[in-house]
Amino acid sequence: MSDTSARRRTRGGGGAARRAERTSVSFEVAKYIERNIPLTELLDEEALQIIEANAEIILEEIGVAFTDNPDALNVWKEAGADMSGERVRLPKGLARKLCETAPSQYKQHARNPDRGVVIGGKNLVTAPVYGPPFVRDVNGGRRYATMDDFRKFVKLGYMSKWLHHSGGTVCEPTDVAVNKRHLDMLFAHMTLSDKPFMGSVTDPTRAQDSVEMCEILFGADFVQNNTVMTSLININSPLTFDATMMGALEVYAKAGQACIVSPFIVGGAMAPVSVIGTLTQVLAEVMAGIAYSQLIRPGAPVIFGTFVTSIDMNSGAPTFGTPEASQILYGAGQLARRMGLPFRSGGGLCGSKLPDAQAAYESANTLNAALMGGVNFMLHSCGWLEGGLVASPEKFVMDADQLGTLHKMAAGVRADENAQAMDAIREVGPGGHYLGCAHTQANFKDAFWRTELLDYKPFETWEEEGAQDTVALAANRVAKLLNDYQQPMLDPAITQALEEYVTKKKASQPDAIG
Amino acid sequence: MSDTSARRRTRGGGGAARRAERTSVSFEVAKYIERNIPLTELLDEEALQIIEANAEIILEEIGVAFTDNPDALNVWKEAGADMSGERVRLPKGLARKLCETAPSQYKQHARNPDRGVVIGGKNLVTAPVYGPPFVRDVNGGRRYATMDDFRKFVKLGYMSKWLHHSGGTVCEPTDVAVNKRHLDMLFAHMTLSDKPFMGSVTDPTRAQDSVEMCEILFGADFVQNNTVMTSLININSPLTFDATMMGALEVYAKAGQACIVSPFIVGGAMAPVSVIGTLTQVLAEVMAGIAYSQLIRPGAPVIFGTFVTSIDMNSGAPTFGTPEASQILYGAGQLARRMGLPFRSGGGLCGSKLPDAQAAYESANTLNAALMGGVNFMLHSCGWLEGGLVASPEKFVMDADQLGTLHKMAAGVRADENAQAMDAIREVGPGGHYLGCAHTQANFKDAFWRTELLDYKPFETWEEEGAQDTVALAANRVAKLLNDYQQPMLDPAITQALEEYVTKKKASQPDAIG
Repeated sequence: MSDTSARRRTRGGGGAARRAERTSVSFEVAKYIERNIPLTELLDEEALQIIEANAEIILEEIGVAFTDNPDALNVWKEAGADMSGERVRLPKGLARKLCETAPSQYKQHARNPDRGVVIGGKNLVTAPVYGPPFVRDVNGGRRYATMDDFRKFVKLGYMSKWLHHSGGTVCEPTDVAVNKRHLDMLFAHMTLSDKPFMGSVTDPTRAQDSVEMCEILFGADFVQNNTVMTSLININSPLTFDATMMGALEVYAKAGQACIVSPFIVGGAMAPVSVIGTLTQVLAEVMAGIAYSQLIRPGAPVIFGTFVTSIDMNSGAPTFGTPEASQILYGAGQLARRMGLPFRSGGGLCGSKLPDAQAAYESANTLNAALMGGVNFMLHSCGWLEGGLVASPEKFVMDADQLGTLHKMAAGVRADENAQAMDAIREVGPGGHYLGCAHTQANFKDAFWRTELLDYKPFETWEEEGAQDTVALAANRVAKLLNDYQQPMLDPAITQALEEYVTKKKASQPDAIG
Repeated sequence: MSDTSARRRTRGGGGAARRAERTSVSFEVAKYIERNIPLTELLDEEALQIIEANAEIILEEIGVAFTDNPDALNVWKEAGADMSGERVRLPKGLARKLCETAPSQYKQHARNPDRGVVIGGKNLVTAPVYGPPFVRDVNGGRRYATMDDFRKFVKLGYMSKWLHHSGGTVCEPTDVAVNKRHLDMLFAHMTLSDKPFMGSVTDPTRAQDSVEMCEILFGADFVQNNTVMTSLININSPLTFDATMMGALEVYAKAGQACIVSPFIVGGAMAPVSVIGTLTQVLAEVMAGIAYSQLIRPGAPVIFGTFVTSIDMNSGAPTFGTPEASQILYGAGQLARRMGLPFRSGGGLCGSKLPDAQAAYESANTLNAALMGGVNFMLHSCGWLEGGLVASPEKFVMDADQLGTLHKMAAGVRADENAQAMDAIREVGPGGHYLGCAHTQANFKDAFWRTELLDYKPFETWEEEGAQDTVALAANRVAKLLNDYQQPMLDPAITQALEEYVTKKKASQPDAIG
């Protein structure tokens, strides 16, 4: 079982602390998953070698484009790349060699020391949905997301036992100007939760703001010497690295902050329609991106990212939870492990518009593949709906409950004398019943994973209570979690300094639109 | 990809055939899944050896009970067991030795030669839900199942591309007397479908009726020399083999017909609350049952069955799609493979009362585990609801659609030159688009699994069309499949002989109740 710790939150010292103590909610939070199970190695050695050889050919013959970024072109030129305009061609082996300085795992600190996560190795860290411009809930239907929604999702994430990470853009707060919303988002993560979080990537200056806010929260010395953010750098597939994302990566790498270097691929549109072809492009892109991060600062923490969906060839819509998406996830995990890099993929991904059976089939397929495929950092673990266009609080708690099953699966199976239960089998014998036996009494509390959401009631009770479906049960749980929520303690001086930073930054420039 | 064959059904020769040809529905049916992927070996060698050693201890020291079955006790005595009343203790190694004559795989024939299935090895054969006394559909709610429901499920199974087997008691037709309903059920499978099916096990005489009806359908010679039924023999866990089930097994084994020898365990009630303890009991029970089948007829085809749920320790309700259930499935698969026996487990199992998100999460978790855990025969693949109390036509088509993803996953990943897609990557280059390139045009038809149910439409279209959830889409598909259904051709003389057999058997005894 993963590391968990009981936790009591208080609001301050002395009398206030004692008062808070009496009324606070005690709850457990899982630290992160440490796998004790074998992974699925879907591709054989021959297929992996083909992909790796072809990725080198892509980098050498086709190359990658670093657009609108003369500094990056200079960096590449000095590193020995073959330059032609914005096209960067990497001699065989160069990218892989440069990637060698990237750490195989790293610790991302949280302001609550118990909430720090180690990303890489056998670990799996779960983070919520990222990026939806819309929100859907049972009461309000589908509408543009606001900063109020954003804060609700951060609170839900804080209250979710099996969620290790507060995430980043849990939804797009469309009621705040695009050039200022990152300030409000970071302030929410920093003050409403004490779990680790992600920085802004939509502009290099916003990445810099993220670093500066972290310096207020953690202290400048601490940030200089430790990783306190993991941020999402999408590659503009195929094979293109734009100045915005690379600018954010440059800021973070220089500051020793972690980046997920992640192709964003709708299969058949931004990559070939074949699994092996897509994996080859993914590997080439990730190697080029991570090599660049190591040119900026050798040893900068990075994650081998892979976000690939399949596509519905009738409508052109991206599709999720499909076999091809799982195959790519498994293969990319193998490629990342062969490079000794942490791996990001998976999540509760689905195409459904509603948190219905389709959403759950698709999400469960992806969550299972992510567990068995060796994902180390799982963005979109919960709350994702409609191909990522929509964040849903009900889906959030539904997926978050399922994350508990991953924890239990990852723990593996104990085979000690107590687990062998031979005394129980002897005691009960043919035709007997185990419910009352000593072994059952001693072990039942931890024997089985327990949902905090799903329905196991007798049919009659369930019917009397209104025959609620999963969405209704989830809506109840959302309301309960938000009602039970208490803000984790933070030094008021830090809160004030963050507020002042946000106010000053907002006042320093006019609102940008779009 | 698994073997599929296009198929046209006709209703007879000459003019009738030509008329039928013009109106018949052409559709593809998958033969069965042949896995080309590595399985998940969850337990390590040490744990497996502990389980195997402890199972021998159970058989030798505790023994198993064969109740109300003096003939079985005589068989065991002659085989060298240590007898004490109805308790049968098996000296170390005896059960395993007896199991060695059971085949590692066998072919179950269907009346349509193209629909025969090979059970064992790398194969996965899917069969629908088995046993629910209730039916729930969107129109009628939850009610007792009838023979009319039964026929609908057989038709849905016949029309489902990814379902290889027609199953057995797809629901309990409660409007027919318990001692006669097996006749109507078999007649439905034999005449409304041409896929393989299961025989009756609720009484040895009904097993005999099943054999006799098969002799009419296939010819007596054919049935003597071939396996035409796979039937479900549940063990009365813990460690008890009752006379009804063993009587049915005796009939089938003597006739060379296949049996699934399957512990039926609600974990914590009929087995210890630990995974290893439960697996140990499962192995002991299966070894004893299969050893007995081989004493009846060496070489009789059998399947190592495992049906284990976890339990909600608050309500005592069985729970599905949980990590412990998956762990047991994975472990049991390993034990079965070490014995060289076909393995049955899994299915679209869920505890939910409705075909909602809970049902889908739970079902997907089990379906994924069944694929990766090496299941060879998957009963309850589709249609299962509310812990098996309810059969649902909507859930049937929802799960059946997901079975398509298992086919694609099982096929593995091709790495040939076309799959490598290097020409496409060269053609498109950085910043390009793959939708129009030659490789995409040549490959898109088979590139991605295609749902026949789920929604990928643009949001606006979906909303205009009524914002249908998965249940609504499934209800549409159920109606379409039943509307498109055409009965597969069968020699009218055989149909008549089967009808006469059923009529005669029904007239030979009064209705039994309960």
